[in-house]
Amino acid sequence: MSADAAAPLIEVTQDAYDLRGVVRLTLNRPDAFNALSEALLDDMQTHLADIAKSDARVVVIAGAGRAFCAGHDLKEMRAAPSLDYYQSLFARCTKMMLAIQRMPQPVIARVHGTATAAGCQLVAMCDLAVAADTARFAVSGVNLGLFCATPSVPLSRNLSRKAALEMLLTGDFIDAMAAKQQGLVNRVVPLDMLDAEVAALAKSICAKPRAAVEAGKGLFYRQLEMGIEAAYQLAGQTMACNMMDESALEGVQAFIDKRPPDWPHTSGR
Amino acid sequence: MSADAAAPLIEVTQDAYDLRGVVRLTLNRPDAFNALSEALLDDMQTHLADIAKSDARVVVIAGAGRAFCAGHDLKEMRAAPSLDYYQSLFARCTKMMLAIQRMPQPVIARVHGTATAAGCQLVAMCDLAVAADTARFAVSGVNLGLFCATPSVPLSRNLSRKAALEMLLTGDFIDAMAAKQQGLVNRVVPLDMLDAEVAALAKSICAKPRAAVEAGKGLFYRQLEMGIEAAYQLAGQTMACNMMDESALEGVQAFIDKRPPDWPHTSGR
Amino acid sequence: MSADAAAPLIEVTQDAYDLRGVVRLTLNRPDAFNALSEALLDDMQTHLADIAKSDARVVVIAGAGRAFCAGHDLKEMRAAPSLDYYQSLFARCTKMMLAIQRMPQPVIARVHGTATAAGCQLVAMCDLAVAADTARFAVSGVNLGLFCATPSVPLSRNLSRKAALEMLLTGDFIDAMAAKQQGLVNRVVPLDMLDAEVAALAKSICAKPRAAVEAGKGLFYRQLEMGIEAAYQLAGQTMACNMMDESALEGVQAFIDKRPPDWPHTSGR
Repeated sequence: MSADAAAPLIEVTQDAYDLRGVVRLTLNRPDAFNALSEALLDDMQTHLADIAKSDARVVVIAGAGRAFCAGHDLKEMRAAPSLDYYQSLFARCTKMMLAIQRMPQPVIARVHGTATAAGCQLVAMCDLAVAADTARFAVSGVNLGLFCATPSVPLSRNLSRKAALEMLLTGDFIDAMAAKQQGLVNRVVPLDMLDAEVAALAKSICAKPRAAVEAGKGLFYRQLEMGIEAAYQLAGQTMACNMMDESALEGVQAFIDKRPPDWPHTSGR
Repeated sequence: MSADAAAPLIEVTQDAYDLRGVVRLTLNRPDAFNALSEALLDDMQTHLADIAKSDARVVVIAGAGRAFCAGHDLKEMRAAPSLDYYQSLFARCTKMMLAIQRMPQPVIARVHGTATAAGCQLVAMCDLAVAADTARFAVSGVNLGLFCATPSVPLSRNLSRKAALEMLLTGDFIDAMAAKQQGLVNRVVPLDMLDAEVAALAKSICAKPRAAVEAGKGLFYRQLEMGIEAAYQLAGQTMACNMMDESALEGVQAFIDKRPPDWPHTSGR
Repeated sequence: MSADAAAPLIEVTQDAYDLRGVVRLTLNRPDAFNALSEALLDDMQTHLADIAKSDARVVVIAGAGRAFCAGHDLKEMRAAPSLDYYQSLFARCTKMMLAIQRMPQPVIARVHGTATAAGCQLVAMCDLAVAADTARFAVSGVNLGLFCATPSVPLSRNLSRKAALEMLLTGDFIDAMAAKQQGLVNRVVPLDMLDAEVAALAKSICAKPRAAVEAGKGLFYRQLEMGIEAAYQLAGQTMACNMMDESALEGVQAFIDKRPPDWPHTSGR
């Protein structure tokens, strides 16, 4: 479980779970509870950018060792106290977080242990999240005098505002079931079924044509920031274009013909 | 349960449930799972516009046969593949959906069976929804390669974003209880109690003065798209005007006098 | 439990629950179910403004007698029917409600009984809320012909839209557990444990440095009204400034050193 000097900060697994097109990125600083050091953030950014341009279909973010992710690397942060440094650090982290939302592939958080501060933010930013019943979640910076401001952005867009504010002001943990009830994760399963559940979700998405998933994910977040009329206008445009895609035309025809669609390249670009 | 050629696409029941002012619109293409053909969309639009100008108090939307509504009519859609056509089709559907939100009367979805794609969207767009435990919900277009973009607009304004995105990316069904927990429907009852529950909800609304309900529904959706300060300003203005209405002045006086309000025309305009 | 002429409309308890910096404001018109008369609204406004400038850390809002708060004072409202008067009354109430959200200290609603109309709004506007299992909630103005328009503003920002609209259109009560499930309150406990639960929550917040809590609360509500990119920009700026605060630098160092932080003035300014 310990990382040696030669181990990469992010372990990349292609065709994870024996599913073509599923890329698993495992945060690999187990001795530091996978804290998001600058180097790790940069590696994440690079991997996400590469995947965005690749023919991958689904990304899974996991953590090595006992924790999912403990947030920022506090030793590194404390070693260089200056406003400029902190601004650039949070900007760098934000860039990585937004890359998750902006890439064409759905990103699933696979949460087996604790997810705290920016680690909890990472779960909130992922499109989907599956947690083991051993997972727990906190935005605990306030315990150290540092309010989890950037984590509050996706947290308050996942949870009801009172639930989010309680976590942010108390720093207390919530367990996996509470996280599901409050909207932070989609599914909770026993730890030994976590990979099967993540794989099932990834497989379901891989079975859909790329064009639909890519256009749909992008539309989903853009329309959320609009008034309902503008949202509908963009959605109608998106859906009309999607319908003209050959995979949709074939899929709808197959449905009418009561046969499986003939999509030879579901997992390719 | 089968529709013959002479049957209307929308069956209109005035004073439904023996309640004056309650109009039930029943989607009446049971053999097509009440798919929203162009003709049906146009009929819906016409009925909603007529009701909006009438002295009706509450609208109930129901479905004939086994399903509530299967979404767009895929045969019709597939028969005329062009970007222009799809744009105009989704624009027409959006217009009908927004008419539900913009009409003065509250609209209740009565969901007894499956509601898929634009059928699920229809439930999400209604002001209130009562489901039987036999109901289930999916935005399943993605299974055919067509992401449910327009349904995602109201779905993401009813459910938490991860729950909405899971439905949109997997196309999986959720059952009635999950729909209630996630915010898509208000109440779930056994199928044989569905009409009684819808009637009770409609009756409760009919007992309120028209002016309050009409001004309130309009305010509710407008303020949702504003920042909290502008929302409060509009709400204060709305409430002051509402208070000057004779029904409110009488209602408040009756409350002070500990007597029932004297509202002779609660169900009329 | 009855208020005599000399009793203040708002009873102020400093260092409530034996916690330094916790101020409890008790609505003290028990015979009027703590209705928000003009005089009471003005007193509230004055107290909130004073506390905002003080070294208090947490505010608790409670109600004397059987009810938490019954909303506006209907006798007072009915006695002076004019559009101008109602506009100014709702503007005054809105000003008080927004003061809760804008003050630096977290505000906790302690709800032991019924909270109706603007009383329910008051709960929704507080940052956090703890309810006894004897509490219940309604926006019941519609029963009198007066749609709870201003209460709908925070209610629709706490609950899902269908749940909020059902309460607003029916005027029906929901119980404490439903209020928790729907996001209106954070915690529900038996009545005899209500003060202990409120005190525990207040104590947890008092243990955090003032700078983090103050900056965090302000950021939380501001970023909620922004698109995600602007929200992140403001949050990153806020967090960088927070990190430069001596309490955060000490808190993070203490965490690294595995010792308690040396915060001599956690409860002072």
